[in-house]
Amino acid sequence: MTVDRTQTTEPSTTRLSINGPRLWQTVERSAAIGVGRPGGLARLTLTDDDRRMRDEFREWCVAAGLTVTVDAVGNMFARRAGSDDSLPPVVMGSHLDTQFNGGRFDGILGVLSALEVMRTLNDNAITTRRPLEIAMWMNEEGARFSPPMVGSAAFAGVHPVDWVHARKADDGATIGDELQRIGYRGDAAVGGRPLDCYFELHIEQGPELDARSIPVGVVTHGYSVYGFIVDIGGETAHTGPWPMELRKNALVGGAMLSVAINDIGWKYAKTNGKATAARLVAWPNKPGILSDTAQFTGDVRHPDPASASAMRSEFLHAVREASARSHCEMRILDEWHWGADIFDQSMVSLVRDTARDLGIQTFDLPSQAGHDSYHIAKIAPTAMIFTPCRGGITHNNHEFTTLEESVPGATVLLHAVLARANR
Amino acid sequence: MTVDRTQTTEPSTTRLSINGPRLWQTVERSAAIGVGRPGGLARLTLTDDDRRMRDEFREWCVAAGLTVTVDAVGNMFARRAGSDDSLPPVVMGSHLDTQFNGGRFDGILGVLSALEVMRTLNDNAITTRRPLEIAMWMNEEGARFSPPMVGSAAFAGVHPVDWVHARKADDGATIGDELQRIGYRGDAAVGGRPLDCYFELHIEQGPELDARSIPVGVVTHGYSVYGFIVDIGGETAHTGPWPMELRKNALVGGAMLSVAINDIGWKYAKTNGKATAARLVAWPNKPGILSDTAQFTGDVRHPDPASASAMRSEFLHAVREASARSHCEMRILDEWHWGADIFDQSMVSLVRDTARDLGIQTFDLPSQAGHDSYHIAKIAPTAMIFTPCRGGITHNNHEFTTLEESVPGATVLLHAVLARANR
Repeated sequence: MTVDRTQTTEPSTTRLSINGPRLWQTVERSAAIGVGRPGGLARLTLTDDDRRMRDEFREWCVAAGLTVTVDAVGNMFARRAGSDDSLPPVVMGSHLDTQFNGGRFDGILGVLSALEVMRTLNDNAITTRRPLEIAMWMNEEGARFSPPMVGSAAFAGVHPVDWVHARKADDGATIGDELQRIGYRGDAAVGGRPLDCYFELHIEQGPELDARSIPVGVVTHGYSVYGFIVDIGGETAHTGPWPMELRKNALVGGAMLSVAINDIGWKYAKTNGKATAARLVAWPNKPGILSDTAQFTGDVRHPDPASASAMRSEFLHAVREASARSHCEMRILDEWHWGADIFDQSMVSLVRDTARDLGIQTFDLPSQAGHDSYHIAKIAPTAMIFTPCRGGITHNNHEFTTLEESVPGATVLLHAVLARANR
Repeated sequence: MTVDRTQTTEPSTTRLSINGPRLWQTVERSAAIGVGRPGGLARLTLTDDDRRMRDEFREWCVAAGLTVTVDAVGNMFARRAGSDDSLPPVVMGSHLDTQFNGGRFDGILGVLSALEVMRTLNDNAITTRRPLEIAMWMNEEGARFSPPMVGSAAFAGVHPVDWVHARKADDGATIGDELQRIGYRGDAAVGGRPLDCYFELHIEQGPELDARSIPVGVVTHGYSVYGFIVDIGGETAHTGPWPMELRKNALVGGAMLSVAINDIGWKYAKTNGKATAARLVAWPNKPGILSDTAQFTGDVRHPDPASASAMRSEFLHAVREASARSHCEMRILDEWHWGADIFDQSMVSLVRDTARDLGIQTFDLPSQAGHDSYHIAKIAPTAMIFTPCRGGITHNNHEFTTLEESVPGATVLLHAVLARANR
């Protein structure tokens, strides 16, 4: 274990432990705000429910003596001063928004574990050398506004603030207007300041830890991911008489892409590849008429970058083939990519070593989903800590974990943060 | 020609001709109400634009001395008394609503030609033996409310009035509420009265007459059509980590049906079969999450009933196959069918003979689309008259025809109606 005890105000922190029941009270309070399907949440970004959750989170932080700031894209930061407060902060965080049919833990457990770390330090009157911050990132899920992880992306300088404000939901609202409406368009500058490092605790999003009954996942790398938005141009005509050979049905073009990307996923499934048809919107998409336009959103991902690249090529080939077969014009409107090599290996080792010194069993695994940490890794050394999730089910109201399964990860977070903050 | 001149108040009607420019003025006035894309209309059923068109149509009818009634599902009837007014009426009609990207003629030309027939009889002070009626059917297109042709279906006793009122649009409005709102929930009973016969003039919906430069199509039969609504049940999960073998992505299930039905259409294309993926709605249908549910609407059709039945079987097989491949549950929520043998052959012959006696060239062809006449044929002898449409393009703002191409059909309508009404 690399905790430098010489810098702490206590003789030893190795026995320091978070207050599990207190952590769980905040998780359960969160689970009552923006209730979705039974057991789940539908707390979409920048809705009234999101505001209620933010308000409550802010109150908790203030009560814990933290200084809360909000930046111009609605990211929230709760700061605990260090003994050398001029140093860049050690940051922990995640998000409090959910999917349409979301669970009670995805993102939420990371933010509330960070709060519990702060409360534990207060209980033990520990002042760290470096300041600490909780980051609560705006719109991680991307369920209401596209793209996902846009708050952390803006903080990392990937998108300008104006561009973020202009993102529009299917309900017509923009991020800028909704931030204003719920009172979370803050004064703080977006990013542009150094962070010592960033830790993100998150429930696992595949059934790896749960299947092995191992409490802590050391996230060594990500998947290589390629995402696509494809615009499909067809032509309306009558569904009855119009001859097959003259048809340009944009819905059929989009359906071909959906089936093709799913087939690519199956082709690479044995080596853990995945490919997803996530969204297909056609217009008019009504009985009696062939669709004029459609838009498809999907992605391919693989732990091996070369395989991910091959999946990408196969999808682009499928676009050309579907265009020819459906007689629709197709255009890649947007393409995004994350590499697999995201995390700082000294930070990854710190998480692993911290757990080992605490006697907590770990398992090395990749992150298969996107996270705010992917963007923050561009500007600061970053690592993630995964905790178990029953059956690996997430983005679903049946997402489930327990206090007992979550405490080891939060304890590793506490000690890894102390190690960084006191060095 | 079979007009029985002994019953008319005029010595001869064979030279009687409609007033083409007057007909075209009404077509052009209609084209200014609910304007859509350039040259087209977006006059959805029971919208404010539909109300404006109905109001204007009612004024035209009243000015022509017709008695206008509205039934409880919003069908409009404009009656011209006969000399023996107790006889069942000879009815002509179609619809004034359009698709989202609709044209200026589909349905509209049939209603306005019927009005022009009435005006021509007025000009010539002709009283027919039987009364005449124009029928304007509610929601033929089915673009806003499903199913299509629901007004004529209710008139023919296919659906109860309460069921029709309860149909809900994607915008949440019901037919009953919208009828009330626009003032077209009338007092007249829906159907339940005898009709002598029904004529429907309509632009062709395939490029048959236009390609042959023949002005009048004698519609001998329909296509055998099977339509389906399929409910698809999947499960939300994270698009990233969730393994391919555990996925139940309802969007992929629906996409498989869309591609499969399109392939069936191509298989039968050489013998004029068609199959359409018309509508696919998935939920949540967003980046980051697999879709929980989807609903697919499509149909297969063929001039040969045995081939249509084979296409139906192939689609039902495709549903089972797609369910197995996508791991989604699939359920046929609704299935509908029209046989090919719709029209009364004595009425069909009357249309053909009337045109021949007028020296107007005709071409026998099937109707490939559904029409209100399909339902009315269940309760009265029915025939259709097709007029040319440029390139056969309909359900599209480029739908186009001319006064010159439309007058022969309207003239045949006039004389066929006279023949029926005076016998």
